[in-house]
Amino acid sequence: MERWFAERAWLGGPNLTENVVLTVGRGRITSIARAQSHSSADHKLDGIVIPGLVSAHSHAFHRALRGHTSDGTGDFWSWRTPMYKVANRLNPESYRELAIAVFSEMLEAGITTVGEFHYLHHDEDGQPYADPNAMGRALIEAAVHVGIRVTLIDAAYLMSNVAGSPVTPQQRRFSDGTIDAWSERVRDLNREFSGEPAVRIGVAAHSVRGVAATDLGDVARTARELNVPLHIHVSEQIAENEACKAAHGVTPARLLETVGFLGPSTTLVHATHLTPDDIDIIAATGTGVCFCPTTEADLGDGIGPAAELVEAGVHLSLGSDSNAIIDILDEARRVEYHDRLRLHSRGIHRPEDMLESATSGGAEALGWSGGGRIAENAPADFIAIDPTSSELAGTDLSTVAGLAMASTRASVTDVVVGGRRVVASGRLLAAPTALERASTLAAMAKTGEQS
Amino acid sequence: MERWFAERAWLGGPNLTENVVLTVGRGRITSIARAQSHSSADHKLDGIVIPGLVSAHSHAFHRALRGHTSDGTGDFWSWRTPMYKVANRLNPESYRELAIAVFSEMLEAGITTVGEFHYLHHDEDGQPYADPNAMGRALIEAAVHVGIRVTLIDAAYLMSNVAGSPVTPQQRRFSDGTIDAWSERVRDLNREFSGEPAVRIGVAAHSVRGVAATDLGDVARTARELNVPLHIHVSEQIAENEACKAAHGVTPARLLETVGFLGPSTTLVHATHLTPDDIDIIAATGTGVCFCPTTEADLGDGIGPAAELVEAGVHLSLGSDSNAIIDILDEARRVEYHDRLRLHSRGIHRPEDMLESATSGGAEALGWSGGGRIAENAPADFIAIDPTSSELAGTDLSTVAGLAMASTRASVTDVVVGGRRVVASGRLLAAPTALERASTLAAMAKTGEQS
Repeated sequence: MERWFAERAWLGGPNLTENVVLTVGRGRITSIARAQSHSSADHKLDGIVIPGLVSAHSHAFHRALRGHTSDGTGDFWSWRTPMYKVANRLNPESYRELAIAVFSEMLEAGITTVGEFHYLHHDEDGQPYADPNAMGRALIEAAVHVGIRVTLIDAAYLMSNVAGSPVTPQQRRFSDGTIDAWSERVRDLNREFSGEPAVRIGVAAHSVRGVAATDLGDVARTARELNVPLHIHVSEQIAENEACKAAHGVTPARLLETVGFLGPSTTLVHATHLTPDDIDIIAATGTGVCFCPTTEADLGDGIGPAAELVEAGVHLSLGSDSNAIIDILDEARRVEYHDRLRLHSRGIHRPEDMLESATSGGAEALGWSGGGRIAENAPADFIAIDPTSSELAGTDLSTVAGLAMASTRASVTDVVVGGRRVVASGRLLAAPTALERASTLAAMAKTGEQS
Repeated sequence: MERWFAERAWLGGPNLTENVVLTVGRGRITSIARAQSHSSADHKLDGIVIPGLVSAHSHAFHRALRGHTSDGTGDFWSWRTPMYKVANRLNPESYRELAIAVFSEMLEAGITTVGEFHYLHHDEDGQPYADPNAMGRALIEAAVHVGIRVTLIDAAYLMSNVAGSPVTPQQRRFSDGTIDAWSERVRDLNREFSGEPAVRIGVAAHSVRGVAATDLGDVARTARELNVPLHIHVSEQIAENEACKAAHGVTPARLLETVGFLGPSTTLVHATHLTPDDIDIIAATGTGVCFCPTTEADLGDGIGPAAELVEAGVHLSLGSDSNAIIDILDEARRVEYHDRLRLHSRGIHRPEDMLESATSGGAEALGWSGGGRIAENAPADFIAIDPTSSELAGTDLSTVAGLAMASTRASVTDVVVGGRRVVASGRLLAAPTALERASTLAAMAKTGEQS
């Protein structure tokens, strides 16, 4: 048992609590108490302690594209060309190296749990590696190596459009051929990592573009049988909605409802272009929604109806997605800012709700039930934020309003995962160094630029 | 003469140049050359050197509200209540202290020139101080104290709405009573600071809400006679447009054109809700536009038509405005991101154009003609950005794409103003310390919360 003293901590709700001692054993918070001083504690955290941030939706390899896709105009669809180029040069070894760099950056940004939405399964010819889960394992090993908690969300991706065309040559690494082959591989993966304390498996259909309506139900069944989270990209682009309506006569959300895909353990990623009926379906089934505001801006997706979803009772989580920007505190604020831009009013989401979407909302979406909180029995994942940083100086220290409206990753000083400090003074304690990471990422980016 | 060696520098256009030596004398860049090494230089700047950033529109005192206006819902108009509370508690001494804290934060964020849009002129009863320019002088002294270049934009504010109602009790500190009294005071201010090398005076009308149509022409005439920049808030809110149409039968932009307010030395701040005809008028007159994207999000203003303005040939500058966030690199990217959200496409603004709006665009808007550039005879204002920072690691170092799409204030390491280094390793070299600033800002914020 170790005792962590926090000058100020967010234990939920609108206010901060002073002088909190967290007792941690076997990677979990076992008790929470008040203390007059830090004298009896094993560790002291200055500043404001909040639960570790959660990126509930990430594609680690997209990080290689940061600052490399700005030559000329385009849209989501044209952006896929360089994205596929990076994807198609990766092997388990380089995928692991790339993920180590990205997960290191996430930890320094205060992200203690990441959901990797993983569809880059097979070799360049679309053939399974000797270990069919070599690529997924690479991501998990990278996470374990740097000390970030991970949910590896293994995504089925079997076709190239809603009409059911086969995967393109650029997509053949994604496909298991049949939904049964995908399901079998995922069950193996889940079995293999069932004993790892900081690893969970989740399952996904890539989208209604990537998995046929007849197969979506199988993906949902697999999730239920394994008792793991179920994710899918939904309505990120207007073209997807139109194609879905043309093929099935309904919106993607309605299609998912019809095949039994929705429910409390399901997370819809993006959910940008929804109808009022879609919002009703999502709310009625207890389905969650993961917004990725910086990516949705970067890719020109548009602004999703966060206010309407929350009003209907839907729980939100947040994702760094393309990792063009890695800053979950910024993502949380952008949900509010995007709604302000859209609705021309302020104070649409409460500060504490913004922070919940950045923490417990993500933990629930990734299968870490009860996590993302400073609470008894929660994983001992927490971070310290410097209230004297330039951006936070002068903000109210009794509530979370300043954190929600003004903090970024730049104010994160300490990061603790499972009771172990992995970041101090804003820097990862173990390798790789920033320079090593820069070198890895630059090499990957070059790979993407080659033909 | 001193020689500054830059590993990489942005000299304009899409590319970066390696191994650049800037010779600086009397606060200006006198020559630019290439060098094999830094051995003959007096100073070495690691990383990427770009011109100092410019916030072309700031209200320093709004910074006290950061993280303090999130209790409940509201809009731009309700936000004015706490903003006016802060305004009405300030005196020249506290205004100077507050501005020192804010300008210090700006310097650490790489902002070397600020345009302070200043309308808080008189004492609590609306009476001139013994020195009628005591409040403007407080801002200028704060800027000189911390070493930031300033254009003090003195704004006329004589009425409370477009219909011509007198200023409210909360606004009486803003008003000089008559446009002649305003003009006389501003001429005194301009005369007094004409010898200060890092200080310029500009003039403004607060808005078509704050200055009568019959007086707007006088403000423009004053600007022309003094040969100084001319600014005005325009069409930030739909309600302003509607009131202007009701009172004058035209949009604010058309009204300004009619009274001779527009032209190449005029900057329209916000310009959020424009008609196509407004855009034509603005372009035809060579008028500039200053976007403040984080404030326009924070206040729920909406997304302005940046793409259409640039397409029409209008030059953009950027402002931190309410200083809810102080990060001009972020502002530049948000212009692009907001247009992507609005137009559902990518690559709308070129990376080099985004950086120009953050540098030379702002310098031109603030009367520092030829500034905001690394060029001969420009003020020697430049900053260094760390390309190995977490956010920039792996981005292309041969172009400005990575800077435009991925950098924030967190990567700013060194700041040089007028040939003098004021920030090193991201920290202000002189007082006040971060802690002192936090204390000042917290005290000001409390003032705003009291009745």
